[in-house]
Amino acid sequence: MDIDSLRQTHPEHWTKACAIRALAMDAVQAANSGHPGMPMGMADVATVLFEKHLKFDAKAPDWADRDRFVLSAGHGSMLLYALLHLTGYEDMTLDQLRNFRQLGAITAGHPEYGHAKGIETTTGPLGQGLANAVGFAMAEEALRAEFGAKVVDHRTWVIAGDGCLMEGISHEAIGLAGMQRLRNLIVLWDNNDISIDGRIGLSDVTDQRARFAAAGWHVIACDGHDPADIDRALTEAKAADRPVLVDCKTIIGFGSPAKADSAGAHGSPLGEDEIAKVREIYGWPYGPFEIPTEVREAWAAIGTRGAEARAEWETRLAGLSGTKQAEFKRRMAGEAPKKLVSALRALKKQVSETAPKVATRKSSELALEVINKVMPETMGGSADLTGSNNTKTAGLGIFGPEDRKGRYVHYGIREHGMAAAMNGMALHGGVRPYGGTFLCFTDYARGAMRLSALMGLPVTYVMTHDSIGLGEDGPTHQPIEHLAMLRATPNVNVFRPADTVETAEAWECALTAPSTPSVLALSRQNLPTLRLEHKMKNLTAQGAYVLADAEGPRRAILLATGSEVEIAMAARDILQEEKIGTRVVSMPCWELFEEQPESYRRKVLPAGPVRVAVEAAIRFGWDRWLFGERGRREKSGFVGMHGFGASAPAPQLYKDFGITPEAVADKVRSLL
Amino acid sequence: MDIDSLRQTHPEHWTKACAIRALAMDAVQAANSGHPGMPMGMADVATVLFEKHLKFDAKAPDWADRDRFVLSAGHGSMLLYALLHLTGYEDMTLDQLRNFRQLGAITAGHPEYGHAKGIETTTGPLGQGLANAVGFAMAEEALRAEFGAKVVDHRTWVIAGDGCLMEGISHEAIGLAGMQRLRNLIVLWDNNDISIDGRIGLSDVTDQRARFAAAGWHVIACDGHDPADIDRALTEAKAADRPVLVDCKTIIGFGSPAKADSAGAHGSPLGEDEIAKVREIYGWPYGPFEIPTEVREAWAAIGTRGAEARAEWETRLAGLSGTKQAEFKRRMAGEAPKKLVSALRALKKQVSETAPKVATRKSSELALEVINKVMPETMGGSADLTGSNNTKTAGLGIFGPEDRKGRYVHYGIREHGMAAAMNGMALHGGVRPYGGTFLCFTDYARGAMRLSALMGLPVTYVMTHDSIGLGEDGPTHQPIEHLAMLRATPNVNVFRPADTVETAEAWECALTAPSTPSVLALSRQNLPTLRLEHKMKNLTAQGAYVLADAEGPRRAILLATGSEVEIAMAARDILQEEKIGTRVVSMPCWELFEEQPESYRRKVLPAGPVRVAVEAAIRFGWDRWLFGERGRREKSGFVGMHGFGASAPAPQLYKDFGITPEAVADKVRSLL
Repeated sequence: MDIDSLRQTHPEHWTKACAIRALAMDAVQAANSGHPGMPMGMADVATVLFEKHLKFDAKAPDWADRDRFVLSAGHGSMLLYALLHLTGYEDMTLDQLRNFRQLGAITAGHPEYGHAKGIETTTGPLGQGLANAVGFAMAEEALRAEFGAKVVDHRTWVIAGDGCLMEGISHEAIGLAGMQRLRNLIVLWDNNDISIDGRIGLSDVTDQRARFAAAGWHVIACDGHDPADIDRALTEAKAADRPVLVDCKTIIGFGSPAKADSAGAHGSPLGEDEIAKVREIYGWPYGPFEIPTEVREAWAAIGTRGAEARAEWETRLAGLSGTKQAEFKRRMAGEAPKKLVSALRALKKQVSETAPKVATRKSSELALEVINKVMPETMGGSADLTGSNNTKTAGLGIFGPEDRKGRYVHYGIREHGMAAAMNGMALHGGVRPYGGTFLCFTDYARGAMRLSALMGLPVTYVMTHDSIGLGEDGPTHQPIEHLAMLRATPNVNVFRPADTVETAEAWECALTAPSTPSVLALSRQNLPTLRLEHKMKNLTAQGAYVLADAEGPRRAILLATGSEVEIAMAARDILQEEKIGTRVVSMPCWELFEEQPESYRRKVLPAGPVRVAVEAAIRFGWDRWLFGERGRREKSGFVGMHGFGASAPAPQLYKDFGITPEAVADKVRSLL
Repeated sequence: MDIDSLRQTHPEHWTKACAIRALAMDAVQAANSGHPGMPMGMADVATVLFEKHLKFDAKAPDWADRDRFVLSAGHGSMLLYALLHLTGYEDMTLDQLRNFRQLGAITAGHPEYGHAKGIETTTGPLGQGLANAVGFAMAEEALRAEFGAKVVDHRTWVIAGDGCLMEGISHEAIGLAGMQRLRNLIVLWDNNDISIDGRIGLSDVTDQRARFAAAGWHVIACDGHDPADIDRALTEAKAADRPVLVDCKTIIGFGSPAKADSAGAHGSPLGEDEIAKVREIYGWPYGPFEIPTEVREAWAAIGTRGAEARAEWETRLAGLSGTKQAEFKRRMAGEAPKKLVSALRALKKQVSETAPKVATRKSSELALEVINKVMPETMGGSADLTGSNNTKTAGLGIFGPEDRKGRYVHYGIREHGMAAAMNGMALHGGVRPYGGTFLCFTDYARGAMRLSALMGLPVTYVMTHDSIGLGEDGPTHQPIEHLAMLRATPNVNVFRPADTVETAEAWECALTAPSTPSVLALSRQNLPTLRLEHKMKNLTAQGAYVLADAEGPRRAILLATGSEVEIAMAARDILQEEKIGTRVVSMPCWELFEEQPESYRRKVLPAGPVRVAVEAAIRFGWDRWLFGERGRREKSGFVGMHGFGASAPAPQLYKDFGITPEAVADKVRSLL
């Protein structure tokens, strides 16, 4: 529909949509930076969505049963900010719009979760929002099954652009959603035929409708500038029995004489002159950031449209039993149950006594057996490595279209999609996701893992086969640099536990962290229990601790993580035999150790002794603990990997790469 | 087709395929580790392919015009090793098969490029081979356009499993191939309905045929156990005018009474008893690793089937003009043209004189303008950020179905697919790929970038917008940990040039590296030319060098990279003003500096002075240069990032995060 027809046939809709468009143009112009084209193109769709379909109450942005609106095409952030402002989200003031993309404003270049109410997730890296939305929808299904449709019954709406749909993660997301038959998920595709480089045809000829249909989606199309047609499409979408793609045909930079329908509208201000012309064409004679009262009021009414539904919901929630209400609130608040710590302590006590020799991936399963019993909010899964990641415990049930009470997800061979879905679940709240793959395939999941960290989401990554210790699968599967990569990422706790006790402790840390994702790097190979004396205290929570102290004068400190702690302990035996007093420091989590007070760190890593670190990974990052923290360059050494691994049985690899007790002892001797 | 019918109707085919199956069972059993199910399932397809369709000559594995065979489902490595052995590749001896997955054998758990002839690419991480194959096919098209179909006219064949097709990268790969209409690319899908977790339906309901058709592929189906039907399908595939998916319906672990058609056949040995039963069912009364003479001979004949075609090709090649032959050989050998170095030197000289103030992404464009003129083998591109990455130079032309002489690829919003395609191009040889995206989206490309490093492929990643210096797009787009991630990866040269001269030098290093991928981390923001005195020598090739020495007694050394070298220089001005003798060391490439002799490193970083590093990224890894290399913990400091960035104009961010000349000078003073 062209502008003239639209203005004529839907004048009220037009002015409301104009308000979005004008704010987007003005804010981008004021910032002299940003993306006006997408908000201008999708304003009609967004207006119909907010006016007639989205369940929300601007005065209660945290309402648990609200529909979630995910702007996957995050560069169009002004669309979202304009909507939040116009519908009356209190924090989204006009000043914030005026300060779009400025230091300290909540209106960042791309929507940042936590900056403002109504930003359900951080988007910008393309495809992530779409993939998060699958997790939102899964969390909703799970909670609805558990708490009933009276208190959980909402949808997740996504606006996705061509970029989102070209990214690989979109394939994983739509495949997962299609298989899961998520009828509460509706994706509005901003089909404007333009990407940064130009027409879509320059790089893609995909028939998106056929593609989504092939993945099990219901597909609808509409004229993205015709409010009646949009309304029809969204109404149909809500009635579908599976996820829905709505192909919204739009024009980027709608109405801009020089830039509409071109890449020129995408990523830079239109310019004052062009904006003036657009205002003319729009019939919008107002100044920058000026919204006439009647339009303000119309939007404000939309913002309060859901107030009654929310009040009714509050009544329904209050009608649940006290226990159920409390549980619902606990779950939505993300609080771990009180029983968790004591249950894990009991496990620790038991394994300290029985001293099993198992891989830490198995230790993790032992911990999960305990955890999943006392934490009904966990939703586990694996990217098609269930039997290897040991992520499935007895009685979890398989989450799927036939069983929404199942708590285990077969994510398929979709590491990135899994990570992003877990982000969505954590953002939705009420469930606590964990998921597994091989540590090496952190590479595939990395885009979403970074967003776990940036958003501060308590997602747990169960990353097994964490070194050359996986053996014969060879260098493509052997992580070498991945611990460094993860440790280099701000706000990630990287745990590499040495035995079952440390693994249980790491799980406790992961499940009680309010706003930090955790990575558990777990061995494929069996490891002895090293923590033979039961301690109530979670030593792993200190990041590093003295596992075995020197006998006699302390001349060496061995630092190790995970499977190499066993090696350090054996090296200590060799050295102590030679009367070289040797301390072993287990360092399951560098990040938590860094947070300890200097006094504790000094106790663990005093000045003086030789220091040798041993880890079956590259040295990168270890200098912090060897040279720093009172260490001395001349008296420090590293035993570990110096390049990629190889394919052979694990014990041979350790020997071949020189990661042995003898090599550690040699290194110490050479430094004494 | 079931085994009985197959044996009866195609007895000769059957024994040949049996040889593959038996070797796969035996090798996996001997290793007590590996994946027998896939080779057993795909042996019929592979036999028909090698017997009737694949253009190859086992005695000339490096024949430039051979068809490429890519085993994307790399866990089925024994399929490939068996084929190479049976067809007579000299290095693939029976002993190598017996030593499958053992230390020092060329038969690694997953096929490793460079270990044996006939392994065209390293596979294992799923989807990579498929995505490499797109690059192979593109390189072939480009070379055919340039050198003519007489010397370049071959296909790329891929075996891909359900895992490959579920991975996100497959979406990017098939989208790119569909748009490019690569008629020389044929994917054989091992459609066995099984993944590690069980039936595919547990995690996916995608109609793969419809999906590929939606992406512009030609789709064919066949019974993957009926040689006649396979032959029909492959014959049809070769006649298509676009990329082809052949849906090969197969049974994993074909013939295993206990494990066929189940996940049990996927990833572990069948067991001696089961293998005995399978031998019975196969009618294969031979011992482990035993191949009867007639079967050997039949396979050997297949291996030499292409010898005549190759000889004819040699004649055709010899028929080209001497210049063209020499150029073809140079290109296939991956040798940079002699003119390259002098052309870049001329640019260096010019910019040292004119001292432009441009972003290093623009510097890179200036370098590419020079390079692309003298290196006809470059194929550039960008993941839909052409104007931002500055990767397109004048006159390159757009590579596409209508113009195979174009040298610029619009990869679309497909960072991972681009990286994997570039790996494929580099593996194919004859072209030298470079491609751009934002440094932050290394996250998306990471899976393929690691394989560039592991395989030692001279691919160049043009990663712009390399810090908070990109400004308003905010933390989702601001790399903080990515330099550390890349530096942590073995065999990657990470360049962060400070100005146009260093950028030109970095490009020279990248384009002359025989077996190391390079990442160029480039600024969005303008930077002054710092190398004002022209030097013939490539200083960047030394990794780090003294850009400005102290005046008077040397009391401080500032270490910096890229955009922060300017800040270090300004800090030096402040400090020198105060008579604090300050050296500035520019460190554009840590890896190359590490390779320098100790004597050079000591000259650049002598013991004694205070050291302060400045980089708009996290500290992770810098301790090597601050505390190590004759440094002292007590006299070292770092000015940089400590967490994620923010959305605001770049100069404000630098100020807000305290990355300023004043902060550097303060840090030095506090350490003196």
